[in-house]
Amino acid sequence: MARDAAADQAPAAGRVATTNTANEMWGGRFAAGPAAVMAKINQSISFDKRLYAQDIRASQAHAAMLVAQGIIGAEDGAAIRRGLDQVLAEIEAGEFRFDEALEDIHMNVEARLAQLIGPSAGRLHTARSRNDQVATDFRLWVRDAIDRHSAQVQALQAALIDQAERHAATVMPGFTHLQVAQPVTFGHHLLAYVEMLGRDRGRLADCRKRLNENSLGSAALAGTSFPIDRHATAATLGFDRPTANSLDAVSDRDFAIEFMAAASVLSMHLSRLAEELVIWTTDAFKFVSLSDAFTTGSSIMPQKRNPDAAELVRAKSGRVIGALVGLLVMMKGLPLAYGKDMQEDKEPTFEVSDTLDLSLAAMTGMIADLKVNEAAMRAGTARGFITATDLADWLVRRLGLPFRQAHHITGSIVKLAEDRGCGLEDLSLADMQTVEPAVTGEVFEVLSVDRAVESRTSFGGTSPAQVRAQVAAARERFL
Amino acid sequence: MARDAAADQAPAAGRVATTNTANEMWGGRFAAGPAAVMAKINQSISFDKRLYAQDIRASQAHAAMLVAQGIIGAEDGAAIRRGLDQVLAEIEAGEFRFDEALEDIHMNVEARLAQLIGPSAGRLHTARSRNDQVATDFRLWVRDAIDRHSAQVQALQAALIDQAERHAATVMPGFTHLQVAQPVTFGHHLLAYVEMLGRDRGRLADCRKRLNENSLGSAALAGTSFPIDRHATAATLGFDRPTANSLDAVSDRDFAIEFMAAASVLSMHLSRLAEELVIWTTDAFKFVSLSDAFTTGSSIMPQKRNPDAAELVRAKSGRVIGALVGLLVMMKGLPLAYGKDMQEDKEPTFEVSDTLDLSLAAMTGMIADLKVNEAAMRAGTARGFITATDLADWLVRRLGLPFRQAHHITGSIVKLAEDRGCGLEDLSLADMQTVEPAVTGEVFEVLSVDRAVESRTSFGGTSPAQVRAQVAAARERFL
Amino acid sequence: MARDAAADQAPAAGRVATTNTANEMWGGRFAAGPAAVMAKINQSISFDKRLYAQDIRASQAHAAMLVAQGIIGAEDGAAIRRGLDQVLAEIEAGEFRFDEALEDIHMNVEARLAQLIGPSAGRLHTARSRNDQVATDFRLWVRDAIDRHSAQVQALQAALIDQAERHAATVMPGFTHLQVAQPVTFGHHLLAYVEMLGRDRGRLADCRKRLNENSLGSAALAGTSFPIDRHATAATLGFDRPTANSLDAVSDRDFAIEFMAAASVLSMHLSRLAEELVIWTTDAFKFVSLSDAFTTGSSIMPQKRNPDAAELVRAKSGRVIGALVGLLVMMKGLPLAYGKDMQEDKEPTFEVSDTLDLSLAAMTGMIADLKVNEAAMRAGTARGFITATDLADWLVRRLGLPFRQAHHITGSIVKLAEDRGCGLEDLSLADMQTVEPAVTGEVFEVLSVDRAVESRTSFGGTSPAQVRAQVAAARERFL
Amino acid sequence: MARDAAADQAPAAGRVATTNTANEMWGGRFAAGPAAVMAKINQSISFDKRLYAQDIRASQAHAAMLVAQGIIGAEDGAAIRRGLDQVLAEIEAGEFRFDEALEDIHMNVEARLAQLIGPSAGRLHTARSRNDQVATDFRLWVRDAIDRHSAQVQALQAALIDQAERHAATVMPGFTHLQVAQPVTFGHHLLAYVEMLGRDRGRLADCRKRLNENSLGSAALAGTSFPIDRHATAATLGFDRPTANSLDAVSDRDFAIEFMAAASVLSMHLSRLAEELVIWTTDAFKFVSLSDAFTTGSSIMPQKRNPDAAELVRAKSGRVIGALVGLLVMMKGLPLAYGKDMQEDKEPTFEVSDTLDLSLAAMTGMIADLKVNEAAMRAGTARGFITATDLADWLVRRLGLPFRQAHHITGSIVKLAEDRGCGLEDLSLADMQTVEPAVTGEVFEVLSVDRAVESRTSFGGTSPAQVRAQVAAARERFL
Repeated sequence: MARDAAADQAPAAGRVATTNTANEMWGGRFAAGPAAVMAKINQSISFDKRLYAQDIRASQAHAAMLVAQGIIGAEDGAAIRRGLDQVLAEIEAGEFRFDEALEDIHMNVEARLAQLIGPSAGRLHTARSRNDQVATDFRLWVRDAIDRHSAQVQALQAALIDQAERHAATVMPGFTHLQVAQPVTFGHHLLAYVEMLGRDRGRLADCRKRLNENSLGSAALAGTSFPIDRHATAATLGFDRPTANSLDAVSDRDFAIEFMAAASVLSMHLSRLAEELVIWTTDAFKFVSLSDAFTTGSSIMPQKRNPDAAELVRAKSGRVIGALVGLLVMMKGLPLAYGKDMQEDKEPTFEVSDTLDLSLAAMTGMIADLKVNEAAMRAGTARGFITATDLADWLVRRLGLPFRQAHHITGSIVKLAEDRGCGLEDLSLADMQTVEPAVTGEVFEVLSVDRAVESRTSFGGTSPAQVRAQVAAARERFL
Repeated sequence: MARDAAADQAPAAGRVATTNTANEMWGGRFAAGPAAVMAKINQSISFDKRLYAQDIRASQAHAAMLVAQGIIGAEDGAAIRRGLDQVLAEIEAGEFRFDEALEDIHMNVEARLAQLIGPSAGRLHTARSRNDQVATDFRLWVRDAIDRHSAQVQALQAALIDQAERHAATVMPGFTHLQVAQPVTFGHHLLAYVEMLGRDRGRLADCRKRLNENSLGSAALAGTSFPIDRHATAATLGFDRPTANSLDAVSDRDFAIEFMAAASVLSMHLSRLAEELVIWTTDAFKFVSLSDAFTTGSSIMPQKRNPDAAELVRAKSGRVIGALVGLLVMMKGLPLAYGKDMQEDKEPTFEVSDTLDLSLAAMTGMIADLKVNEAAMRAGTARGFITATDLADWLVRRLGLPFRQAHHITGSIVKLAEDRGCGLEDLSLADMQTVEPAVTGEVFEVLSVDRAVESRTSFGGTSPAQVRAQVAAARERFL
Repeated sequence: MARDAAADQAPAAGRVATTNTANEMWGGRFAAGPAAVMAKINQSISFDKRLYAQDIRASQAHAAMLVAQGIIGAEDGAAIRRGLDQVLAEIEAGEFRFDEALEDIHMNVEARLAQLIGPSAGRLHTARSRNDQVATDFRLWVRDAIDRHSAQVQALQAALIDQAERHAATVMPGFTHLQVAQPVTFGHHLLAYVEMLGRDRGRLADCRKRLNENSLGSAALAGTSFPIDRHATAATLGFDRPTANSLDAVSDRDFAIEFMAAASVLSMHLSRLAEELVIWTTDAFKFVSLSDAFTTGSSIMPQKRNPDAAELVRAKSGRVIGALVGLLVMMKGLPLAYGKDMQEDKEPTFEVSDTLDLSLAAMTGMIADLKVNEAAMRAGTARGFITATDLADWLVRRLGLPFRQAHHITGSIVKLAEDRGCGLEDLSLADMQTVEPAVTGEVFEVLSVDRAVESRTSFGGTSPAQVRAQVAAARERFL
Repeated sequence: MARDAAADQAPAAGRVATTNTANEMWGGRFAAGPAAVMAKINQSISFDKRLYAQDIRASQAHAAMLVAQGIIGAEDGAAIRRGLDQVLAEIEAGEFRFDEALEDIHMNVEARLAQLIGPSAGRLHTARSRNDQVATDFRLWVRDAIDRHSAQVQALQAALIDQAERHAATVMPGFTHLQVAQPVTFGHHLLAYVEMLGRDRGRLADCRKRLNENSLGSAALAGTSFPIDRHATAATLGFDRPTANSLDAVSDRDFAIEFMAAASVLSMHLSRLAEELVIWTTDAFKFVSLSDAFTTGSSIMPQKRNPDAAELVRAKSGRVIGALVGLLVMMKGLPLAYGKDMQEDKEPTFEVSDTLDLSLAAMTGMIADLKVNEAAMRAGTARGFITATDLADWLVRRLGLPFRQAHHITGSIVKLAEDRGCGLEDLSLADMQTVEPAVTGEVFEVLSVDRAVESRTSFGGTSPAQVRAQVAAARERFL
């Protein structure tokens, strides 16, 4: 988009009818005309056409306000509204021909409007500029994207919560350092992601709240002398209020960057879950299996299910983070107000949004279809003296032993089991009493994986009862 | 920090007294002992000692809760509290010797506590782990940092608002593409940054709100079987509630990343203002001058004032953005729960916070001391037919001309002025009437820069009256 | 691309004829079939079709080698070659229908080949896999891109060198901190970019050299038992040698990352030159003007030339750097060998290459067309006591004064000129002698900007003679 | 570092003796004096003191050249040399007091030199500036770092090659998508990293070659009028030649960025190997065990070995990539020549270098000490019909079957084995003949994992003979 204050403030509708190219309007002084490379680097219609619905929505709000304020006539206003309705219909029907020579979505729409309704079209651009127009369109687009992604994240939460409920008592090894640490339930593990995604939705909601200001009416950079009503267009477009500073409004891209930052954290979360799916579906772990729909196979090795979708979701975090970096680099060190640099804001934002669409859909599908191999999960808990902590805690609690002593005793008992090549629960009471005579048969209660899991009843802990309570609370908070 | 579920769940206080190194507690099986390189890569005390105040605060809250719940005795609790008070005092007095062999801040504090109060020290670590401990400490640290930076941003806003009020009517050229576009006021320009910084504070506040959950009591990963009260420690530590999922609580670093994302946008804003200061202080612009305190000079060229502080603020955006990237890369693809990778979260966060401290202080100082060269600013508005837009708007408004015609007429009049080598306002009425006979003498009213500025009264626009209203509103909203 | 070792090792040609979708070949076990989302996230044909020429080139080399080694018959080989020629022709004529159901470029080409030549098509995939096939195709594509971009960078160097020669003696202020420091020539300034770009070409050349190994014949990951000749395909495809390790060959994307890193530094260089163009074309500087072809204007303010192309070049550095980050994030922590994650390598690489095409073309055009305002540049040297250094040097050289004294004297003389509101050269000898009696009239020789410039004859310095020598050397080294 | 052309060109030695602060030399015009915040943001001595050895080396080369060119006297030169030797000795002995008021390493060294040798010290700075001085020092530092890291990478290659030789025939499952694909040898797998690291060394070497130009003598930005010999200082300092353009030489930081880009790819490679170590040491895989020296354990769970060092190496890739981003952001859009922004180049570079030191040492230690669990690796190959590809290849090769038929037959045979719950090699010949009567007993030869591995004799393939050849070649190429 060529951004020029004066040109944008009051462009002639008629120019479109007579010239059909945006650059010709610059007049005879550009004898040479933009070279082909300039046309290519300068145009934005190849991507900003995705703003068409927002552009038309905002133009209709603007026109209605101009009428209400007596800046343009009611008939002009009505013609504009009807004309824009038709442009919208043409675009949605796939009948609209986007013209690169008209540079951007604004000029493409306006040129068509002029063809449809004649000179009235020219009144639409009164008291605005492409600088505030694109800021408004893009803001609306990002707002729509946030609403869609919030719903997608919620759907993924729902799939996770459903599986968590189903597996509130399904025991699996809990890992730290990917080493077996303590037993947890699979439901508990999945709910961790529900929390992460809840924060992601919070970030998206905060971003939406913050961006929801009306930049329309900031004009090229300084505001306008026409008696416009920015509160009215704000209300029409669902904005909470007009932006308070016109220079800021045309040169701010915080909303896109904040959206990308939220998307980066979200993508990072998805990459973690995807990594777990990849690990859990290995031949060595076999904790879960993905449905055919989300794996690829081989006609030669029919048992093979490559977790392609999970790998792609994991990989796509790179794209989102890279796009965030790109936008921050682009904005770094830019003086006020609008600079053409800012035209580079849209493609990465669209790409991030498209990536979220795909990644969230794929992840939700994978989680919804996930088959859990409970036997393999339980078998995983048989390794690593997984209840050693419970033994130590028992020594503290029941024998009132000082920690140090409890600690040492547990170490010795584990060593005994390790030497015997058995688990803690396979030792006899007599065996244990050779290490610590005060141990009683009651100790065996804490050595079972199920008991260990059941005992962790602290708020947010892994006991099935807690997990079920967390499931209920999560439904309340998130669904 | 070595993170091990079982070890951390109930470590022996006494180990500290007898061994004085964290790794020796792993027992006799590590015959070789960590090599020097391992000691160096594994330790975190060289940087996490900055968490000392938070670590002690959280430990005191934990101990009080353990007493209240009857998990440890009141005497032990009292000893722990007093001992920790002394450790805090020693650290703040610079008398504490941090020991790399004890790996991290938690072990350093606990070891000293054991020296001070004996075996009772060992009871402190009941029902917690270093995994939830470090998450809690770090969360508190980031919360403190956010509070400090919010106040710093507010101070910068105050400096900007003061200057904006002073220069509510100081005319300067408004730029798009760094080309002269329309006149604005310097106050209006500065208020654009007040808006940006307002959003930055909003992001910091949202981050604070979201992080303000109590991870303490999540233990190693699964919660604990001790009857702890996580709501109580939450209240003591000023958290809004306990975290809902223990696995998430020990493996989440969203709060640091979100803080860095907010800091990245803030730094980007500062880089823009810094760039403007660099440009405005060039010999060619001379719009402002920085005080001696924030420039460096030369004994040979005594007139020279290098805007070093502005350049450094601009440059430091790279550091902040780089740190954000680093943390996102680190977290990418990590399976749950705690992994040692997460130890890499602190140094970049500290670095970002230190950078904000410096950058915000320097920028606030520069703005507060800024001297405005009103003559140079006004001279800048004499270039570029800066009121051409106003002329076109006048033709539309007063003559009711269609835009297209107004547009063409303006172009021709500007061409006339350009050929004469004069400004628009230097043309005679007769000159203008050769182009458009209907033009009246009234047109000269809109050709003056002051009138142009005054006319832009739309909400958020550049007219001095608007700017004064924005100043008042900004004081209300931000100070 | 679905990457499966066994499936790829020896796919049936006939499958294509009978099924026409890539996923159907996985057999009946995928009853549900990939969901629409999977089809969308999994496919790569929408972007990897850009590899068609490389894919066909590599397939022809592979087939010829299979014939030469007696692995397939000569008639099959001839049929494959002819068939692939036809596929190539169809694609280049725009007559080829790419089918998303066939996932990727390899399957699309092979399916069409099977339609054209029947069962012989199936022999093509003997002893290879899509894993080594895509690595080879992509390597060839990046190699082609590097060759193109190297030539583009060279063209930009040529434009800079031509301008530098023209302006070898055009005096302008040299800046540090964007403050006037010492006079330089414009030719000298432009040659600085010739050096940067020379290093950029060196990086591209090194990347090319390093990537120029033949990954074909690595098969899925482990090599193959067919008696292939990888040196032969290397020679045919212009590779220096076969890759030494098949696991590395299918899971390495260094070449794309190294290309992007080189592109990032190049883009950063372009952003600096673009920034200078933006600053130099401001109303305040007016050092240069860009041609109409690379600016956008306004029909109202006909004198306005927005440096849109320069701004876009500056901005696009963000995109390139972001893409580099994206690829590094994607590869971080990936276990060997091929993972589907790697499919995410192509779009960012294509985007970076497209960005370089545009940015380099635009910058070359801007530089070639640049009009220099010699008067404004010279006027810029009149500010800032720009020859104060020369005065100090003169005092050292001619009077043999100790530095400290020379330094202090110069400071006092500058102060004198500043107080008088004149330049150093405007002071009388008597004036100077009030500060330092030993000063002689000879001193005025070093106070002129031209003399200052001429005197800096050190290697690489700014004297016109040096600059002309640098121009000649640059022609020799780079063109 | 304050960078000022004129001030740096010829600073007075005496100033140091009289003022002891760098900013005081700016003279009386800075009445207020830099504020504390300015002192803190502006100083660089806290980190650039790491350049002391390079600074002194370059100063001695400069002084020797000044003497040889007759610019300063031999006695002054000798005093400077001796004095700098003493400064070096004091710093290395830890007796040197770095003074923040003196801002940077250059001023600290020079001030001490002045104390030691008096006024002669002031002659050292003739014909140079801090701008070219710091560029030269930093270039030398990066060159030293590259040499050190190249040797460290080589040491890691040596450790990998030794293990690869030991395990040239140790069979393990080869993975794609982390799913079992085809059998490979562990030696083959490790050699993949030797290739990656070989490219890393190539990148470091190319960076070194490109940076190895002498920036000294570029002075502030424009060169100098003193008759210096830049080729002489180049030779003394081991540079290949002087830089060709003085403006470029003082404002280029390509060498640091290219070093960081090479370090980023290297770190990414290390993150992949680290990820594999983490996966291979899980209870589920148990392919390898790390030595006690590089794991952390628990006194309660004595069997536990957390792969902390591997996790940290994996994580630290984030830090390196982040630092690269930070430097690119910093340099983006900077006009020539030196800007204070560039002072931000050093800390991230030091951090990257320190990170490589640690990461490479830790990884080399882990690999050298690695214990391989051959039984677990072989057991891993028993899953997943790992030789199905070999069966299909056999059908093609021995029966001359068309691929499609071979493909289908293999699928059916695998299905048969899957239904029986056995491996392919457990089927009887009669079983197979029910699917394809032409199969002979010879087929069993290709179904064994060892035979499959042995058969892959293509160049770079996994057969033990190939791996041994690759080991020998790798020793030749890399050690």
